[in-house]
Amino acid sequence: MIELYDLVGASDVRFSPFCWRTKAVLAYKDIPYTTVPIRFSDKDKLAFSGQDRVPVIKDGDKVVSDSWAIAKYLEDKQREPRIFPGLGLQEACRFFNLYVDRTVHGACFPLVVSDIFAKVDPADRDYFRTSREERLGTTLEAMAAKRAEHRPKLQAGLADLEATLAGQDYFFGVLTYTDLCLFGTFKWVTAVSDEPLFSSTPALRAWWGRMRERLGL
Amino acid sequence: MIELYDLVGASDVRFSPFCWRTKAVLAYKDIPYTTVPIRFSDKDKLAFSGQDRVPVIKDGDKVVSDSWAIAKYLEDKQREPRIFPGLGLQEACRFFNLYVDRTVHGACFPLVVSDIFAKVDPADRDYFRTSREERLGTTLEAMAAKRAEHRPKLQAGLADLEATLAGQDYFFGVLTYTDLCLFGTFKWVTAVSDEPLFSSTPALRAWWGRMRERLGL
Repeated sequence: MIELYDLVGASDVRFSPFCWRTKAVLAYKDIPYTTVPIRFSDKDKLAFSGQDRVPVIKDGDKVVSDSWAIAKYLEDKQREPRIFPGLGLQEACRFFNLYVDRTVHGACFPLVVSDIFAKVDPADRDYFRTSREERLGTTLEAMAAKRAEHRPKLQAGLADLEATLAGQDYFFGVLTYTDLCLFGTFKWVTAVSDEPLFSSTPALRAWWGRMRERLGL
Repeated sequence: MIELYDLVGASDVRFSPFCWRTKAVLAYKDIPYTTVPIRFSDKDKLAFSGQDRVPVIKDGDKVVSDSWAIAKYLEDKQREPRIFPGLGLQEACRFFNLYVDRTVHGACFPLVVSDIFAKVDPADRDYFRTSREERLGTTLEAMAAKRAEHRPKLQAGLADLEATLAGQDYFFGVLTYTDLCLFGTFKWVTAVSDEPLFSSTPALRAWWGRMRERLGL
């Protein structure tokens, strides 16, 4: 059975958006798996993968890291239901994936970073604070205090997603990796935070319900 | 023959990115057309279309406005070569189209707006200055003076496009409306400005050459 090395916080909370992408693909394809919980401070346990970031999967002798590479691996391993169900869709999904990483995560991160800090494993708190404060150029407390300032950017990003979805069940009409990728983002935000996501975006809210039901996650 | 109402500046320069999208589709499908030059101050000449923005096409009795609606109309009119060549690609192209409108144009506009002002028809200068200064919240001259400040945002946007394209001939692997849409953006920028676009993005520069050759534009 596939083993997924999955980021874990206190009280077994699973919040990595990249690990959620992999879990969404596994659920969509109904591929059985178990998870190996990994804290930030357990990075040495990933040394076998030749790098130090989750997700990593072990499938027998095969080791694959990086959520995008894992998605392609799983699509090759078990074709149906396809996450790239036609010509050009793997490339289109790769573009959407980049958009989520840059634009959607960029808009979410300042809002939820202090929430994540509250949920990481106690052993990870120092590492998380130091690395994230360096990335942000300010303290976690300062970011938490500026929540209201960061909210409009996230709401603008969600409005763009709402506009894309309007009149469709899935982002590219049919369900593709694009939906699974974005699903991971919202699992991340909702796992750690009470930040309201869908109050002004009814199509996105309906999509979120549809995805949760379809994936059972 | 199809008539395209096409924005025109001084010396017959054609710079609207949205009109270029339509011309790119017409060229790709090898559909013959003529253009009717329209200045900003000629908007009343578009009244027959029920709105006041270019592009508008007249195909016999049929009138279609909005570059996205025109793209779909032309795809229905003449199927081959297809701009949405498979399942999910119309929706994926619509997302990319929105991304270009919001993100790519948002990054280009502050850099080129004063260049556009220099190229609009003399009759359009007052309208252009007033409307754009209102949108920008500052003067065209102030924007021109801040060119260097705005350049990193455009270069970051181009770097994302470069990353998307890496190893592929077209953005979704095969040529789709995505390429034609973005082609319109670069025709816009290069028609009015000397702003360097491709100095740090070799894959994008090669794609630009490939598109120009393929479309003959």
